[in-house]
Amino acid sequence: MKIGFIGLGIMGSRMAANLQQQGHPLVIFNRSPEKAIPLVKKGATQVNTPAEVAKHADILFTMLAHPEAVTETALGKDGFLVHFTPNSLWVDCSTVHPSFSREMAREAHEKKIRFLDAPVAGSKNQAQQAQLVFLVGGEEADFQECQPLLETMGKKVIRMGENGMGSAFKLVLNHLLATSMAAFSEGLILGEALGISLETLLNILVGGPVAAPYLALKRSKLENDDYEAEFPLQWMQKDLQMVSLAAYESNVAMPLGNTAKEMYRLCLQRGLGEQDFSAIYAFLKEGSGGDRVAS
Amino acid sequence: MKIGFIGLGIMGSRMAANLQQQGHPLVIFNRSPEKAIPLVKKGATQVNTPAEVAKHADILFTMLAHPEAVTETALGKDGFLVHFTPNSLWVDCSTVHPSFSREMAREAHEKKIRFLDAPVAGSKNQAQQAQLVFLVGGEEADFQECQPLLETMGKKVIRMGENGMGSAFKLVLNHLLATSMAAFSEGLILGEALGISLETLLNILVGGPVAAPYLALKRSKLENDDYEAEFPLQWMQKDLQMVSLAAYESNVAMPLGNTAKEMYRLCLQRGLGEQDFSAIYAFLKEGSGGDRVAS
Amino acid sequence: MKIGFIGLGIMGSRMAANLQQQGHPLVIFNRSPEKAIPLVKKGATQVNTPAEVAKHADILFTMLAHPEAVTETALGKDGFLVHFTPNSLWVDCSTVHPSFSREMAREAHEKKIRFLDAPVAGSKNQAQQAQLVFLVGGEEADFQECQPLLETMGKKVIRMGENGMGSAFKLVLNHLLATSMAAFSEGLILGEALGISLETLLNILVGGPVAAPYLALKRSKLENDDYEAEFPLQWMQKDLQMVSLAAYESNVAMPLGNTAKEMYRLCLQRGLGEQDFSAIYAFLKEGSGGDRVAS
Amino acid sequence: MKIGFIGLGIMGSRMAANLQQQGHPLVIFNRSPEKAIPLVKKGATQVNTPAEVAKHADILFTMLAHPEAVTETALGKDGFLVHFTPNSLWVDCSTVHPSFSREMAREAHEKKIRFLDAPVAGSKNQAQQAQLVFLVGGEEADFQECQPLLETMGKKVIRMGENGMGSAFKLVLNHLLATSMAAFSEGLILGEALGISLETLLNILVGGPVAAPYLALKRSKLENDDYEAEFPLQWMQKDLQMVSLAAYESNVAMPLGNTAKEMYRLCLQRGLGEQDFSAIYAFLKEGSGGDRVAS
Repeated sequence: MKIGFIGLGIMGSRMAANLQQQGHPLVIFNRSPEKAIPLVKKGATQVNTPAEVAKHADILFTMLAHPEAVTETALGKDGFLVHFTPNSLWVDCSTVHPSFSREMAREAHEKKIRFLDAPVAGSKNQAQQAQLVFLVGGEEADFQECQPLLETMGKKVIRMGENGMGSAFKLVLNHLLATSMAAFSEGLILGEALGISLETLLNILVGGPVAAPYLALKRSKLENDDYEAEFPLQWMQKDLQMVSLAAYESNVAMPLGNTAKEMYRLCLQRGLGEQDFSAIYAFLKEGSGGDRVAS
Repeated sequence: MKIGFIGLGIMGSRMAANLQQQGHPLVIFNRSPEKAIPLVKKGATQVNTPAEVAKHADILFTMLAHPEAVTETALGKDGFLVHFTPNSLWVDCSTVHPSFSREMAREAHEKKIRFLDAPVAGSKNQAQQAQLVFLVGGEEADFQECQPLLETMGKKVIRMGENGMGSAFKLVLNHLLATSMAAFSEGLILGEALGISLETLLNILVGGPVAAPYLALKRSKLENDDYEAEFPLQWMQKDLQMVSLAAYESNVAMPLGNTAKEMYRLCLQRGLGEQDFSAIYAFLKEGSGGDRVAS
Repeated sequence: MKIGFIGLGIMGSRMAANLQQQGHPLVIFNRSPEKAIPLVKKGATQVNTPAEVAKHADILFTMLAHPEAVTETALGKDGFLVHFTPNSLWVDCSTVHPSFSREMAREAHEKKIRFLDAPVAGSKNQAQQAQLVFLVGGEEADFQECQPLLETMGKKVIRMGENGMGSAFKLVLNHLLATSMAAFSEGLILGEALGISLETLLNILVGGPVAAPYLALKRSKLENDDYEAEFPLQWMQKDLQMVSLAAYESNVAMPLGNTAKEMYRLCLQRGLGEQDFSAIYAFLKEGSGGDRVAS
Repeated sequence: MKIGFIGLGIMGSRMAANLQQQGHPLVIFNRSPEKAIPLVKKGATQVNTPAEVAKHADILFTMLAHPEAVTETALGKDGFLVHFTPNSLWVDCSTVHPSFSREMAREAHEKKIRFLDAPVAGSKNQAQQAQLVFLVGGEEADFQECQPLLETMGKKVIRMGENGMGSAFKLVLNHLLATSMAAFSEGLILGEALGISLETLLNILVGGPVAAPYLALKRSKLENDDYEAEFPLQWMQKDLQMVSLAAYESNVAMPLGNTAKEMYRLCLQRGLGEQDFSAIYAFLKEGSGGDRVAS
């Protein structure tokens, strides 16, 4: 069985490498072709269009930046969907909003292609170490067929329900990540401005009852003021836009989620998009403390 | 040594009971005198004014609702501060902003009274079971003198630094509690509106990496739609006002904290003040889901 | 010249009636056909599908609720776009985001159809009295051809630039309407809670330097607590979503716009969607004033 | 009759100059004494403490930065209140929250001093040209006695009600100023990012129905990117804190007001405090537009 993989960014390149390492032959495509080189060196076949991936693969994974990229790759010029052999399986690991996943499912089903939305929890390190968690929406049979491959890339594979439910849960997760990182930053900065050291704050808070456990992974970034991306801020901001869209479509108010969305946007405007999303701490901290007014 | 205790609400009544249980004789005062009855039955001496507490006690604990209540009790008509024997120790466990704690410290020191700010982490159940965490600001010697008594009421006693630092850390904690409860609620409601059951959401999220561990304690409230107060929403909203004030005084922007503050205020306007602060979930959920617009 | 008109809601029905009154023969379609009856009684031809409108009209106006409705009507099953005679003119008066207008322009141009985005400033009364302001994006020649018809429905017609620029300006306008209504409401409610009468507040503020002049039109609604819709709240909330989307696409942070969006969403959740958007005053006012906390 | 004036900043210096120009002998005090020089040159008596002002004046105006400054000046070491001849009149023109004005009224009344809260609408230019609007809270008789002097400094003098009501109305005004400036900025930046020129946006919006008329006065600042202060941003941020405090005390949620408060705080953190509050436009605009994400 040949596996197609489209989208070789921070996440996709590592996920594909894990498939390759388990002996699966890969057909790959990436918009920037140089990112395919490491996989090609280890035997992957690089092709020039998404369409060619479909021609050679029985199952196809996509790991792309946003819904527009998925649409373009699947349905655009040289898109893969019409070139797929009927009954093939498309597994979209991109983070998108659930109504978009359901739309892609419909597009696929019309062409007799099976579809799973299978976004992941975890970022660069988890992708590298095959420790991702897959949140899957789609038919039980398709899920079971795909499960061994997903387990090659992750430590846990959960079927959330029908198409769109994987994407739904992913958005909930990223809403929680984004808001907790922002609110935690605010708390730290307040504590520091009031005279408590960052070290003391982190010592007491991280691992304690009021901080999300994943924040332990961000500790060294905050302490070293070094925001090398595990999960780039620009994609978190994009995900919050997906959250906002999903909330709009399902009649849910999310005041904190939207406030966080705008704060990450201010970070983007200031050029922090390619840094880790924990760089919101640096944005909020800049110039804080000291006298409350100039005079 | 006689212990004075002023403020016998949800928290104070339980804290005083733990002191009493360890054999400490208590002199107590509460604005609503009937709340003193259970302690009186077990031997506490109830008096009619804060001043009288000071006349009989060597160390005095206050556990009051807000800075104004502390000011009134300490410095108002029949306030205790001027009636205290010099060198006595006042331990304020109320949640207030740090500049207020420092102001109280100054007032106390002027009258040769020693002062500790010692707010607590934990709510009703932790108070009951002597499982509170005390966050203490003040002199090391005073801290050490007081520590055995605090350990009677709590499981952990931490000196954060000089006067005001206990209050500072407490505000950081409650900022994190308030924002995480609100953001978690938003995430749950989004997930439910997108078709995931509350049970599934809680099963995966609670105890996982993106949810603050304390949220496990709120699970049954959300599931049963029963918000009997452990930590009343009105006090959380008050604490967020303290946070906002401390942030103003120390030049710190807290966009999420302030958004949360306003959401809890909307809850207060709708009469949820005496329920647990997790009732923000009910407020945000009301009418959510379904069609995004009427037609 | 026969004029097609699709979308006969609060706005569209009044706009079409003004065209009819000036002697223009109309071909009309509305999803709920009963809304067409008054126009049919005065001579309009009602047809069963958008496609049939295109077959009979040389110029076609759409006034629809949201982008999805426009897509469905133009490009869906029985959509009008493929049935239009080449070189016909489609004028979309719906409030949509600019990238959507440009997408519709592309779809139209591919089929040799000309396209203008021409959303309107003004609500029910202005539509009724032909006092709308049209904000137009598209080719100068198309604009000039269409101008007399737009002037039949409005008092002012402004070409903002190329396709999408009409929609762009419309979103700026509605952002200002939505935020000023919400912030004005907050100010009134604060003033009232502090003891100033609503009448005094409105007497001084309305028509003064710090209140947007249009707020005068909302005065009687606030005073009578009667929010019969001129501009339904649900559409304002939708427009704020369009604003948020346009801001996302063009890298602009809008913290106040998004906060307003979420407040209107809370109104929607509470069933205020079909009332005027000034009903946000009622939502925010409910339960305000009085003691700040319960005890 | 001798007039005391304390607080000679941007506003106070101009207000005092207008009193002087009408022939009123002044006794003045300012924390930074050099600011008194121009008035002294024209005959004012400069003294070294607030207390000395009270000893020489029959009526005393204060125009200070915030409640703490008022407290310090009136009640602190060398404060004026105890040195005032009974039945004298204190007129506080500072922008403070209403409960503080009432507290000052109580302090004054205890010492048999009469008190008016009389904050002003208008900024530097209006102060210079005696075009301020005074919003007065207090006894009708005191108001009438003071009215001629206020009219020397302003164009309009309105009695809002009892003590605190002047301050109440002032906070409503500044809430509207602050939120409209921020929301207008967001709208302009969105329009610009979508391709409309700032000039076109301002031409259509300023003076139109959806923009507060005062925004016309800010036009040249935005166009020239020159934010020389008429109303310094730091004081607007302080006023929003007063608004937030008043809202807390009177049980009013103000989500937009608080979001604006935090945005101005971010401006302060970045050193914009001494610029005009319209500099929030520059803060929000920085880095906006262009691609929504880096890649």
